Amino acid sequence: MSSSAGLRDVIAGTTSICTLDGLKGELFYGGIPIQELAENATFEEVAYLLWYGRLPKRDELNALQAELRSCAVIPEAVLSMMRSFPASAKPMDALRTVVSALGMWDPDADDNSAEANRRKAVRLTAQIPTIITAFNHLRNGREPIAPRADLSVAGNFLFTLTGQEPSNVATRTMDVALILHADHEFNASTFSARVTIATLSDMYSAITSAIGTLSGPLHGGANEAVFRMLEEVGTVDNVEPYVHGILGQKGGRVMGFGHAVYKTKDPRAFELQKMAKALAEESGNPHLYQISTKIEELMLREKNINPNVDFYSATVYHVLGIPTDLFTPVFAASRVTGWTAHVMEQLANNRIIRPRGEYVGPVDQHYVPIDER
Amino acid sequence: MSSSAGLRDVIAGTTSICTLDGLKGELFYGGIPIQELAENATFEEVAYLLWYGRLPKRDELNALQAELRSCAVIPEAVLSMMRSFPASAKPMDALRTVVSALGMWDPDADDNSAEANRRKAVRLTAQIPTIITAFNHLRNGREPIAPRADLSVAGNFLFTLTGQEPSNVATRTMDVALILHADHEFNASTFSARVTIATLSDMYSAITSAIGTLSGPLHGGANEAVFRMLEEVGTVDNVEPYVHGILGQKGGRVMGFGHAVYKTKDPRAFELQKMAKALAEESGNPHLYQISTKIEELMLREKNINPNVDFYSATVYHVLGIPTDLFTPVFAASRVTGWTAHVMEQLANNRIIRPRGEYVGPVDQHYVPIDER
Repeated sequence: MSSSAGLRDVIAGTTSICTLDGLKGELFYGGIPIQELAENATFEEVAYLLWYGRLPKRDELNALQAELRSCAVIPEAVLSMMRSFPASAKPMDALRTVVSALGMWDPDADDNSAEANRRKAVRLTAQIPTIITAFNHLRNGREPIAPRADLSVAGNFLFTLTGQEPSNVATRTMDVALILHADHEFNASTFSARVTIATLSDMYSAITSAIGTLSGPLHGGANEAVFRMLEEVGTVDNVEPYVHGILGQKGGRVMGFGHAVYKTKDPRAFELQKMAKALAEESGNPHLYQISTKIEELMLREKNINPNVDFYSATVYHVLGIPTDLFTPVFAASRVTGWTAHVMEQLANNRIIRPRGEYVGPVDQHYVPIDER
Repeated sequence: MSSSAGLRDVIAGTTSICTLDGLKGELFYGGIPIQELAENATFEEVAYLLWYGRLPKRDELNALQAELRSCAVIPEAVLSMMRSFPASAKPMDALRTVVSALGMWDPDADDNSAEANRRKAVRLTAQIPTIITAFNHLRNGREPIAPRADLSVAGNFLFTLTGQEPSNVATRTMDVALILHADHEFNASTFSARVTIATLSDMYSAITSAIGTLSGPLHGGANEAVFRMLEEVGTVDNVEPYVHGILGQKGGRVMGFGHAVYKTKDPRAFELQKMAKALAEESGNPHLYQISTKIEELMLREKNINPNVDFYSATVYHVLGIPTDLFTPVFAASRVTGWTAHVMEQLANNRIIRPRGEYVGPVDQHYVPIDER
């Protein structure tokens, strides 16, 4: 048997959705470089690309946009359930619970045909932004804002978050952030979705697993931790003492650096850095960007570690007006397109995912009556 | 990179909790053969064994029993949420949603210390049986029955299911069924719990993933499918034509046979078979057992495949009066002890679980403007 801690560099299956080159720092969806998609595509086009393996023609894109817009509203029964959630709940816990609950109300839930799962993929992509912003309003004692039928997924997220029609720049920035996070091969949350669906469970079970897996600070939770770090650093002058303080601690970890696969700068970090720079300057938050680049320089010089996708996304989300504890849910709102694509791909050529454990515990033990122990 | 479809025979980590020998058909918890535990132990002792790596002394067992009994009641807020669930919801979907929701109400949810996770393991083990039977009452328009402070986990499951104090034989049978399903190394649901916790998420996220993964018919869902098959077969005389009918179909599958790891008869099947025989005869259902053994003989003779844990558990659960669609939730009520043990073990020596995918999709693609596609 072969063995590798954390399955590092172990192939767990084949995929046509996405590939990356960790040494060169390259990422492709359906064979197209991520930079080309970030510069030219919309999130809806990317969703289609992940689900169908090619970019949509105009009528196909129109049909997908219409379908997304028609199902962005969440069922009243689900909204009513959300009203009972404690205001102190973590947004990722609320999102995980609501997505799990959606399965109970969806008559399609157990239909694992490709067509039914494609419909569920569209509904989840449309509804997750609505769930996130609805929870944010409810916990603050406000009524949720209904999505509009004329806005994109990115536009509706910002609109239902604030109640204001977002600017074109804000909408496009959000759109690109969604594109950059949409898929990343067999990352931990996607892999958990594949493990869950491979027992022939159902789409809601798989996406619920993925949300729980994403919530950890070693995965999607990192973008929130990055922003809390930037706030703690506070000023450019404090970067060196702060970073040295962390690196001097046993197990100390500067958030947003290093990656399980990339050994060079994450290609998504370049794109997010550009957006972070433009937005931070435009919105009067230049220090956030300056602190970030200073940390990047220092980490490269002293530890030879590069920033990952989470590092600059934190600044982008903050400047877009997104509350810090919604950063990871926003990651989920994007990655759900990749998760659902992987679920459909796994089902098309399924085998249960069941590795082995290497046993290192006691052997030759016997049951001993309780009073003789 | 090494590769194996479904990670078959790939080591995904080390464990001291449980080991099995697929060729010899042996299973051990903490080094103790499963037969010795099935014959002598209680489910509470086995839970302790999985969590601590050894059987409890009398005062340790007393303390655990007291703790389990004190937290079997589910919070009123959670019960109130369950009242809004549709009666048509599948019990596993309801269980997945409630366990996810419990995290929102648990102030301990984000504390990943060993002590906090041990408390959560105890609470989940105590509460899952209550959740299952509460959902069953609510969907039938009845009020849930509160667990009693003087009953074991097995006793409380049967008591809250029926409102009647269960017989000693029924309680002991339930107890043994819970022992036999409590852990099974890196099975798919346990592995999904480990993938989820390895991002440093939280216990509720991990157990929610495991429940979704267990729900599939290639895993925990198989015991329900077995019983539906026994009902369809109906008589001993119909076994041969029925089984031949299935085996003659492309991809036809007789439920409850074969195993990803065992190449011989599942050791748990022997224990369950004994109980199924005794119970089926005692309760006036001898045909269920006769049909089962006839199917087993036929499958061994014609396909050389042995029954797995699901095959005889179906008869046992039915004769205990458990509705068929609660069979998989009962599996969860047992396996939660193993899941929580694996979560704690993973955290004690953690590395994110992030395999690679082998890319087989298009290469050298470019973004093409929409009207040129």
